[in-house]
Amino acid sequence: MNIHRWVRPEVLAMAGYQPGEQPEAGRSFIKLNTNENPYDPPEAVRQALAEADWHTLRLYPEPSSRPVRTAAAAAYGLQAEQILVGNGSDDLLTILLRTFVAPGATVAVPEPTYSLYHSLCQIQGGSFVGIPWLPEWQLPLASLLASEAALILLARPNAPSGHVVPLPVVAELCRRAPGIVVLDEAYVDFAEDHGLPLLQQHPNLVIIRTFSKSMALAGMRIGLAFASCELIEQMHKVRDSYNVNRLSQQLAVAALHHLQAYQPALQAIRQQRQLLSDALRQRGFQVPDSQANFVLAAVPGNGRSAAEWLSALREAGILVRYFASDPALRHHLRITIGTPEEMAQLIAQIDRLLA
Amino acid sequence: MNIHRWVRPEVLAMAGYQPGEQPEAGRSFIKLNTNENPYDPPEAVRQALAEADWHTLRLYPEPSSRPVRTAAAAAYGLQAEQILVGNGSDDLLTILLRTFVAPGATVAVPEPTYSLYHSLCQIQGGSFVGIPWLPEWQLPLASLLASEAALILLARPNAPSGHVVPLPVVAELCRRAPGIVVLDEAYVDFAEDHGLPLLQQHPNLVIIRTFSKSMALAGMRIGLAFASCELIEQMHKVRDSYNVNRLSQQLAVAALHHLQAYQPALQAIRQQRQLLSDALRQRGFQVPDSQANFVLAAVPGNGRSAAEWLSALREAGILVRYFASDPALRHHLRITIGTPEEMAQLIAQIDRLLA
Repeated sequence: MNIHRWVRPEVLAMAGYQPGEQPEAGRSFIKLNTNENPYDPPEAVRQALAEADWHTLRLYPEPSSRPVRTAAAAAYGLQAEQILVGNGSDDLLTILLRTFVAPGATVAVPEPTYSLYHSLCQIQGGSFVGIPWLPEWQLPLASLLASEAALILLARPNAPSGHVVPLPVVAELCRRAPGIVVLDEAYVDFAEDHGLPLLQQHPNLVIIRTFSKSMALAGMRIGLAFASCELIEQMHKVRDSYNVNRLSQQLAVAALHHLQAYQPALQAIRQQRQLLSDALRQRGFQVPDSQANFVLAAVPGNGRSAAEWLSALREAGILVRYFASDPALRHHLRITIGTPEEMAQLIAQIDRLLA
Repeated sequence: MNIHRWVRPEVLAMAGYQPGEQPEAGRSFIKLNTNENPYDPPEAVRQALAEADWHTLRLYPEPSSRPVRTAAAAAYGLQAEQILVGNGSDDLLTILLRTFVAPGATVAVPEPTYSLYHSLCQIQGGSFVGIPWLPEWQLPLASLLASEAALILLARPNAPSGHVVPLPVVAELCRRAPGIVVLDEAYVDFAEDHGLPLLQQHPNLVIIRTFSKSMALAGMRIGLAFASCELIEQMHKVRDSYNVNRLSQQLAVAALHHLQAYQPALQAIRQQRQLLSDALRQRGFQVPDSQANFVLAAVPGNGRSAAEWLSALREAGILVRYFASDPALRHHLRITIGTPEEMAQLIAQIDRLLA
């Protein structure tokens, strides 16, 4: 069948984003490959699910997720009109591209970063400009500005490096960029500071967050975008009418009402991050300081390749992430921070493989 | 703030799709405005929710909703590779536009129909061609073909009319159309036949369905697209990586395993549809034969306007749908079929208002 005459050439040409492996039910892995939270959400969130009214599932959800916006506004000190709720932050990224990137317009990012940005730009028919990070993971500010991009995407903490661009540099980027700046704060709850204070000063700034990492609800697909009321209003037009289902809205509200209850898990993850970074460095891996719930580890130079480490660990029942298609990451593994027990097993396997 | 330099002109110019009213919790309405099912899903679906594993919600869902595709393939006699699962059929429509409609390409529909089609075309930067139905709701086949559209959208049963285009006419449309034909079967479970047998013959045909109407799961956002493996493969690239959450996937599988258990509710709705159509006609409304779970009623010519009927019924606690922005529907109300009790109350209120 010749489908070429029907499918947009941009779509035909692309490979499609490859998410990390989700093992089938029944197979038991230590899953350190997609940056999920190793701990369940607080009891209050489970309670919200248990109390969900079965008789309302036949009804459409609140179209704009108003209860979630209200709870998020209270939690983060914003107005509900500054908030848009997405079916995961992937949905928000899609909405951002469709709202702000005309065909042929430029999308600029520092690379390596979350590779979905590139895929979404391809789908939208935008012109993608990936600019390498400067040494020591410094932001290539001048090159990003010179791109005159309609949209600049900056993950902070960045994936897969885990480093953060200092907030004053983000502010300068916003001030000087001619287009929209998206600050992707998917991992910010594991970091030392966040960009919300910048919102007031920078009308071209959009901040996005996800409930898939720190909030331990990856399975429910919830994300938040924060920006000026004016930008959010435009993004609402592009959003699917009922983009967030009823149960996800209810769990999101419960999670936002109990942010404090997440703190012990976040603290444990930060502690394990430090312990794992130290342990890997002692074993010859190069690991930049991470403020996320993962570390990027360059494998020791005189042994297995990163792809071989990936396979050997998988055989030992441990899933980590390797980015086969990015030459800049060919020596690297990205490892999610798990529980102390999971980290101990990981280190034990690494020691076995190094022996 | 001047946001015009950032937002795509197509988005700035549009009003945005307006979904039907979702009353806030606590207000009690007879809700006949968004074509939901008045009956809960079968007990087996409630059971699937009760048995959902809380400890997996921290993990991403299966990216391509494989369990749903497998269950749907068995239920509908297709291959799993011919099926794509969406976050509601709105998500599928968005994916279709982004896969097959290049900037400036034509999207053609017979009108009036589901007005979201127009909004999605605007967002995509397509050129929208709406062609009036011929008398007696006949398909304007020649005009649709003459548009040389990249994508033709046909709702069958159509919304808001409830009528169906005969399948041989759909087949002819597929055979002669140079582009993709989307058959939107959101309401097909209330109709006498469906288009699945056409799939094999027509490589340019995509059929979409939703769990929001007959399947009584509007709150969970689930939709299915059926097409050739080749077209579905391209649509997967455009889909968000994890577009359907874990609980929705589990409920969808349960629903697909218990299609027979839906039959009593579907039968009751068909019966009430006939009774309501007759009752409205007896009272001076013009009501074309519907094969959906709603009727389109032109109000009697010598009394209240349709907008006044809308308000008067709302005041009496009954929500119906009025399409203020479509001149072709200015005398019409669209009324969802509810339970026998709800229909009796509706007729009682209409009699009160006519008295």
